[in-house]
Amino acid sequence: MLIYDLDTPCLLLDYDAMLANITNTHTFIINKGKEIRSHVKAHKCSQLAEIQIKNGAHGLCTATLSEAEKLFKKGFDNILITRPIAEKIKIQKVIQLTQESKNIFVVVDNENTAAFIDELNSNSSLPVQIFLDIDVGFGRTGFQPDSVIQTALNIQNKKNLVIKGIQAYHGNVQHIQKYEDRKTQTLSRMQIAADIFCELKKKGFELSIFSGGGTGSHAMDVQIKELTELQIGSYLLMDAQYLEVDLYGESSYPNLKPALFVLSTVISANNKNYFTVDAGLKSIYRDSPNPIVLNETNEQLKYEWFGDEFGKIIAKVDDSNLKLGSKLKIIPSHCDPTINLYDKVYLFSDSKVLDTFEIDLRGCNQ
Amino acid sequence: MLIYDLDTPCLLLDYDAMLANITNTHTFIINKGKEIRSHVKAHKCSQLAEIQIKNGAHGLCTATLSEAEKLFKKGFDNILITRPIAEKIKIQKVIQLTQESKNIFVVVDNENTAAFIDELNSNSSLPVQIFLDIDVGFGRTGFQPDSVIQTALNIQNKKNLVIKGIQAYHGNVQHIQKYEDRKTQTLSRMQIAADIFCELKKKGFELSIFSGGGTGSHAMDVQIKELTELQIGSYLLMDAQYLEVDLYGESSYPNLKPALFVLSTVISANNKNYFTVDAGLKSIYRDSPNPIVLNETNEQLKYEWFGDEFGKIIAKVDDSNLKLGSKLKIIPSHCDPTINLYDKVYLFSDSKVLDTFEIDLRGCNQ
Repeated sequence: MLIYDLDTPCLLLDYDAMLANITNTHTFIINKGKEIRSHVKAHKCSQLAEIQIKNGAHGLCTATLSEAEKLFKKGFDNILITRPIAEKIKIQKVIQLTQESKNIFVVVDNENTAAFIDELNSNSSLPVQIFLDIDVGFGRTGFQPDSVIQTALNIQNKKNLVIKGIQAYHGNVQHIQKYEDRKTQTLSRMQIAADIFCELKKKGFELSIFSGGGTGSHAMDVQIKELTELQIGSYLLMDAQYLEVDLYGESSYPNLKPALFVLSTVISANNKNYFTVDAGLKSIYRDSPNPIVLNETNEQLKYEWFGDEFGKIIAKVDDSNLKLGSKLKIIPSHCDPTINLYDKVYLFSDSKVLDTFEIDLRGCNQ
Repeated sequence: MLIYDLDTPCLLLDYDAMLANITNTHTFIINKGKEIRSHVKAHKCSQLAEIQIKNGAHGLCTATLSEAEKLFKKGFDNILITRPIAEKIKIQKVIQLTQESKNIFVVVDNENTAAFIDELNSNSSLPVQIFLDIDVGFGRTGFQPDSVIQTALNIQNKKNLVIKGIQAYHGNVQHIQKYEDRKTQTLSRMQIAADIFCELKKKGFELSIFSGGGTGSHAMDVQIKELTELQIGSYLLMDAQYLEVDLYGESSYPNLKPALFVLSTVISANNKNYFTVDAGLKSIYRDSPNPIVLNETNEQLKYEWFGDEFGKIIAKVDDSNLKLGSKLKIIPSHCDPTINLYDKVYLFSDSKVLDTFEIDLRGCNQ
């Protein structure tokens, strides 16, 4: 079956581009002596996680506890939950997961939460394994850098939790388009966490992991000596946002290719300056920049939002090769939330449908 | 169980507000002599569709064919698919549905599509029942008004389809905030379709339905004499967008109440001017205006987007009643795509959880 025979809108993944993105990025990082903890939040698909692990990722990370629970049920282990938990209901779930797996980790960014975890875990034989989340200037989560050491000292004697590592994520740097600007920001921010990592070790903490970074910054994250593993997520999919980022600068390293598409059909053509397609903001998550329209004939086509179930393709209708029923591959603005709109993705190679993967972590937002 | 005991982020529906919205709006419309075809695209939930029908809706409409297929499987009938179909694969599915149900309707906005439907349906005994979709200035779908009569004449003798009615939707008018401005626009646009409806009847077409309008314009749609039914969708849920619209002007009619919320938890509190919560753009669809934060203590709190899995609640942290673990009800920017992110919604009354409804049409975007 060809992708153009599929009902639309539907989600497509170019198998060759995806695999090239994985092998190129993994090779780049592993060659620099770092490990890879692929961020499953980007694709929400355990079959893709399996491909990442087969290609060298040593572990996985998730943005939510429910993603980690589902991955564990599917047989994965060595999973870091990168969003702090703060309530009893979630701490209890982490404790439950800790009893079942030896390699579940969760970040903490508050001393009281650490104490609460310790208290709630007092009846179990296994300590909850935590990472100290450090705010290196993004300001979203994480301890303020100047409070980390004291907090670590305060909680180091708690019996029911153990500090396994630190995490730092500079989310506001990932999409800085210019390589040099992003590099300067990345190195200065990650150095803050690197210094804390060294200081904690000096004080006798047995930390094995410094986890952090992302797709946008991975080319410079690897330059941080203390960093042990990279949390890359979007690299295998790519999107309109990341295509604007100069990932490797002047290096000749092969840039990542767009692999994720929404296939959409022209369903109305009664205006001179645009076509209406069937993919709106329920099929392509609304974000900036606008989605990018691909077209076999290299015609210049622009996508604009046109409501929940419709998109507008700007084109000179009379001169266009498009017509009612024409199908278009569209690169989403932002891969993570777009893939989260679908239950399945069609893998293809050279327009042939190869397989269907279930987006089995879709909707796991808790 | 109280809503505050639920794991977050999760979706909440205030049962009393939702039911009041349904009964008030239905009463308003039925008292004006019109029928109600509730738009299931807004809530994607067959249990809510059932409540709408029990409270006087005579039929349903959907934005997609797959929504209609699912509703039909659940036992609903009298369903209008409001998005034109243009490809063989979808026409075949409509033909299939037509064989099973006597009351499935689909809009058409192209003469060739009508001919294609007629051709593909030649082996069946039941004609496909179509509505002519008329563009009254929104420009998204629909025949240009000056082409409708001739098209209707051209296709009237086709044996395998029958024109049952017309549709007009002025989507770009629904969110005009000022009542009088919206009224002027609504009346002038809907009159275009009303005139066509009269003209077609004069020419001998046996049309029984003129379907159109929406939540934003329903107070003035009812003033169009020829309009037989209203396609209202968001009215039972409401959202930050519709709360900015003056629905009834100087009339004392009770305004619609926000009924849909995302419950979110404060998970990080290490900054002076804001808290970080666990509902980001995968839990509240990113649209404008920003989501509205409710708070038992009437503290002024503002939501800002903070990535896929996080939100920022602007507040003076030292003076705030919020703390780590606090839960907040948040009114989404836009109800339709937000509800489409969830598999279930918790119905509550007075903070008590009453029931859980499955969002069984979630993801039906084809």
